[in-house]
Amino acid sequence: MAEKVVIIGGGAAGPKTAAKLRRERSDIKIDLYTQEDIISYSACGLPYYIENIIQNSDTLIMRTPEDFKKQNIDVHIKQRCIKVNPDEQTVLIEDLISKNIYEVKYNILVIATGATPIMPKIANINLKNIYTLRTIQDGINIKNKMRTSKKAVLLGGGYISIEVMEALVHNNIQVTLIERNSQILKMFDEDFAQLITDYIIGRNPGQVNILTNEEVVAFMGNEKDEVTTVITASGKEIETDFVILGTGVKPNTDFLEGSGIKLSINNSIKVDKTLKTSKNGIYAVGDCTDNFNLVTNKYTWVPMGSTANKEGRCAAINIAGGNCLFDGILNSTITKYFDLTISIIGISYKEALEHGFQPEFAIVTKRDKAGYMPNNGTMTLKLIADKNTHTILGIQGIGEGEVNQRINAVIPAILSKTKLESFMNLDLPYSPPYSPAIDPVLNAAQIIYQKING
Amino acid sequence: MAEKVVIIGGGAAGPKTAAKLRRERSDIKIDLYTQEDIISYSACGLPYYIENIIQNSDTLIMRTPEDFKKQNIDVHIKQRCIKVNPDEQTVLIEDLISKNIYEVKYNILVIATGATPIMPKIANINLKNIYTLRTIQDGINIKNKMRTSKKAVLLGGGYISIEVMEALVHNNIQVTLIERNSQILKMFDEDFAQLITDYIIGRNPGQVNILTNEEVVAFMGNEKDEVTTVITASGKEIETDFVILGTGVKPNTDFLEGSGIKLSINNSIKVDKTLKTSKNGIYAVGDCTDNFNLVTNKYTWVPMGSTANKEGRCAAINIAGGNCLFDGILNSTITKYFDLTISIIGISYKEALEHGFQPEFAIVTKRDKAGYMPNNGTMTLKLIADKNTHTILGIQGIGEGEVNQRINAVIPAILSKTKLESFMNLDLPYSPPYSPAIDPVLNAAQIIYQKING
Repeated sequence: MAEKVVIIGGGAAGPKTAAKLRRERSDIKIDLYTQEDIISYSACGLPYYIENIIQNSDTLIMRTPEDFKKQNIDVHIKQRCIKVNPDEQTVLIEDLISKNIYEVKYNILVIATGATPIMPKIANINLKNIYTLRTIQDGINIKNKMRTSKKAVLLGGGYISIEVMEALVHNNIQVTLIERNSQILKMFDEDFAQLITDYIIGRNPGQVNILTNEEVVAFMGNEKDEVTTVITASGKEIETDFVILGTGVKPNTDFLEGSGIKLSINNSIKVDKTLKTSKNGIYAVGDCTDNFNLVTNKYTWVPMGSTANKEGRCAAINIAGGNCLFDGILNSTITKYFDLTISIIGISYKEALEHGFQPEFAIVTKRDKAGYMPNNGTMTLKLIADKNTHTILGIQGIGEGEVNQRINAVIPAILSKTKLESFMNLDLPYSPPYSPAIDPVLNAAQIIYQKING
Repeated sequence: MAEKVVIIGGGAAGPKTAAKLRRERSDIKIDLYTQEDIISYSACGLPYYIENIIQNSDTLIMRTPEDFKKQNIDVHIKQRCIKVNPDEQTVLIEDLISKNIYEVKYNILVIATGATPIMPKIANINLKNIYTLRTIQDGINIKNKMRTSKKAVLLGGGYISIEVMEALVHNNIQVTLIERNSQILKMFDEDFAQLITDYIIGRNPGQVNILTNEEVVAFMGNEKDEVTTVITASGKEIETDFVILGTGVKPNTDFLEGSGIKLSINNSIKVDKTLKTSKNGIYAVGDCTDNFNLVTNKYTWVPMGSTANKEGRCAAINIAGGNCLFDGILNSTITKYFDLTISIIGISYKEALEHGFQPEFAIVTKRDKAGYMPNNGTMTLKLIADKNTHTILGIQGIGEGEVNQRINAVIPAILSKTKLESFMNLDLPYSPPYSPAIDPVLNAAQIIYQKING
């Protein structure tokens, strides 16, 4: 009897697991169940679809159920998993069209149910034209609404809001972003969040408004139940044509109640380095799992498309009988706001303090090429290191220059706990079109090292 | 009595040492002697000056003797060091204008005499319009000649020739490159050298000719002693308006004969990690020193502007009483040919075999952004790892896409001997404008790992 692998979830991690598993093993039966009607799509690309950098939403779909069928993988759309019974090695599936509920047997189960936007408890949040952005249909709805609109309100100052703001500003929408905390992008230190805010405001004066320390208390609608006004705690009444909620996500794990599968931070699924859950024969991958932070050595929950793909690949290798360990993450993120690259890796200065490190930092603003080369971009980097161990804890980088090149040079150094004294003389390649003779990121390391050594 | 530091050499490393030493210590007397009349300039920028991306050669000069004077550093131009007497702590200097020879006392001596082009032994090499490219005057001479020329011959297929070729092609010169070996850019594996060659030829069909396995045996001149024809060993007669020699450089260390200062590979100066030579109180920095290769653990000689700057900075800290160790290099190099980035870090596959490693490799050709994003560039990466230790030995990268970002992500991993199994799941930041969900460099690591593990 052939082994049967059942995968629950059709975003990034589930389809990746299925595809890699098929490449590794042709003899296993693979069934994938998803509550959506589209699978294997890039949710991270949705802001660029809304912006109209990408014209057709189908472009974001990597593979269709038909593509998977050709690889002998059976994809069942609009089928939601409502219960897992580890002792019986079964799952209960609800057909979202017929509403029938049926049982499916498995030998190996892979949970890849992802995450869902959190709906904040705000009066009249069910008015029309209040959107979240997670699925392709969400993207289509927002793009259609944007085309006939003049004003929008974004709730929450995370990455998605920044990316959606670019999309809206590019399409001549007047945007107000409302953030509960004292800064946008709370993973950054306050100084960097301010630099990013200044850039956003300065790029389109008058078109963008960013309100921090501000909460939405109610939405007001018209006779068609369409949102027209956003009411804030400080008494502001902001007229708008639509609202996008970027107020965070939570793992889709409610259906695991009673299964005995151990949950972790934020109700994400606890997995080990092989992506196994606490129950025999059950793996979990992608946005629904917890993550081990290799800087703080603590468990965290950072849903990211890149991690989802790596975990899916790794789990598939292990299911196929191979050996792949997913050690953990460095909280690495990057995005852009028009020409400004925005990135943070590891932990910020404030987080370093919170986690009991003794951090020192250096901020450098430098050109990305030799000073005499044309088309120089500038960048500002903030490097954080620990005074005791001399290891690098994190880097924040923003700029119109080549930030990503510098960020990447730090990442393996954080992973391997390279000391500043080695890193500051690292042999990064030099040529005038690519960097100054001493790279800005090495400048930053040199400065911290001299600070630490008095 | 104040301590007196004498620095010999005015390229990159000498002025860097002087400037950093002054920042660290205001009480030391600093004298810099150089045989040239311009100091502190970027030789690496000369091809872009010739190309006319940079219009004015003065742009390449970082600081003038007057700038140094303001920092209380005395720069003596057109003064050549002809002898070092470590026992007496003196150097003999020749004034190149008056031809006077005089003695200078030092407490600390820093040798930063750089390197000089090697003049190959070819008949009539002293004809006019046969150039080397090292000084600003060389750059000015070549640029002036180029403006009235139609054809050029480049000898040697190293980085400088590739950069100069871009400059000449951009200015509508017909270029023939002649390389003695079977490939250009001999630090690359043959497959990559061929890809680069194909790109160069394909970009400007008919305008560029690359001859490998070919040697020049003689130059022929006209009645004005100007070169007109290049004669090769295979009997080719190539008409040309000028010739540029890119046939390598050698360290400027002849004047050290009899000084007892220990020399190393290629007659470069042997230095320890503090940049001290074998003689008390004498440091050496920049292109005249040997280099420790951190991959092969052997001494090598790789003159690079970035290393020169780092060594100068490090020596200055040590002279000032601080503590800076320059551990070594990774043979990191990068350049471009128009839109093609060309880079190699660590060692190639063939070098890995030569050095007794058991290398495995992966070649991937990938897009640099999410596939659905516009303005995608492609790149080809060749990652080399050791089968026994699973450590990364080197990477070669070429492409119109963001190669440098991937290259940089590998460099600290080579330094810290990170194993493939950790590196292949490295948390590189992901966002569609910056990379696919799994970065190409991680794809390459995954492929090697699966090759090694059968």
